[in-house]
Amino acid sequence: MNTTIEMKRFSRQLEFIREIDKVKSIFRQTPLMDKSRKENDAEHSWHLAAMALILSEYAEEKTDLFRVIKMVLIHDLVEIDAGDAYLFDAAANVGKEEREQEAAERIFGILPEDIGTEIMDLWHDFEERSTNEAKFATLMDRFQPFLHNITTEGISWLEHGISRSQVLTRMQPAVEAFPLFWDFLTSNVDMAVEKGWLKPG
Amino acid sequence: MNTTIEMKRFSRQLEFIREIDKVKSIFRQTPLMDKSRKENDAEHSWHLAAMALILSEYAEEKTDLFRVIKMVLIHDLVEIDAGDAYLFDAAANVGKEEREQEAAERIFGILPEDIGTEIMDLWHDFEERSTNEAKFATLMDRFQPFLHNITTEGISWLEHGISRSQVLTRMQPAVEAFPLFWDFLTSNVDMAVEKGWLKPG
Repeated sequence: MNTTIEMKRFSRQLEFIREIDKVKSIFRQTPLMDKSRKENDAEHSWHLAAMALILSEYAEEKTDLFRVIKMVLIHDLVEIDAGDAYLFDAAANVGKEEREQEAAERIFGILPEDIGTEIMDLWHDFEERSTNEAKFATLMDRFQPFLHNITTEGISWLEHGISRSQVLTRMQPAVEAFPLFWDFLTSNVDMAVEKGWLKPG
Repeated sequence: MNTTIEMKRFSRQLEFIREIDKVKSIFRQTPLMDKSRKENDAEHSWHLAAMALILSEYAEEKTDLFRVIKMVLIHDLVEIDAGDAYLFDAAANVGKEEREQEAAERIFGILPEDIGTEIMDLWHDFEERSTNEAKFATLMDRFQPFLHNITTEGISWLEHGISRSQVLTRMQPAVEAFPLFWDFLTSNVDMAVEKGWLKPG
């Protein structure tokens, strides 16, 4: 027989699993590669995890890839309460940190305390962007929508009137330390300006 | 400067990342918890990975959780070519193995050979269901839609006229070895019959 304590713990885990289903309804500005619709946070998080797996050779030495993947899996859960703030929307990013911290406390608080603390630590590590793991996770998080943008002829850039310098300014801190990615990004930004997908300047 | 060999390798990795975006458009029979629509393979795979993280304490001893998570992240990629076969649809499951093997060869073949081989091994391991990792991954893969079904008052069971014995027969091999999950499942199956979400018998 299962004890009451075991059952309570399991129930909290199941409640969390149900709660996080909501990220499937948090939509981002990024279109699917086939342009059919915008993608949501669950799809985005899955894509980052798969990318990290495939691209792991480009992480700094001594990067714990498992930790990277855990981070990208949970990094957007706070958006259940705080919503998605488009990278290039300055107004939507005001007060984001406080809203997301409150969201983290509520959502991770559903879990048994030991697991909730582990997830909170992962999320803080990701947000602080100082460890090798957080830096590689952030690279994935910035590079994936960029790849979607160039594959879809800049749909979301055009929709929001984004310029070359906006992309470079927002991408540089996360991407610059990874030369292959940074070269790919800068040459594709130039191409995007030529094609008219990004505003020059 | 990057060499041509490096650039070719990177290009194949990016091509794969673009290719797998298609699983975001492979829809399953499972509804979202809020009943608003059916979920797709990318969302499903993300949910399984997050579940494995939260529920890892219930895996057999000496289960490599990172490998479990890699498996669930890639387990449905073959459905890009082979489509999703509903668990209770016997006809849709005829010839599935051959179709999926062909799909795996094409899709994983996009990758540089070393990575493609690693992903193929993970997928075969998952399909064979004999290692601790594959067993725990399969538990997640069966338990997640079950949880969605009981949370949504059996929408997809009712849609397809599923019975108690169909659920138990298909679930038993994957779930029985995990007592807490099996107890939860059997008691909820009884509840589902009482509520009229599953046919008796």
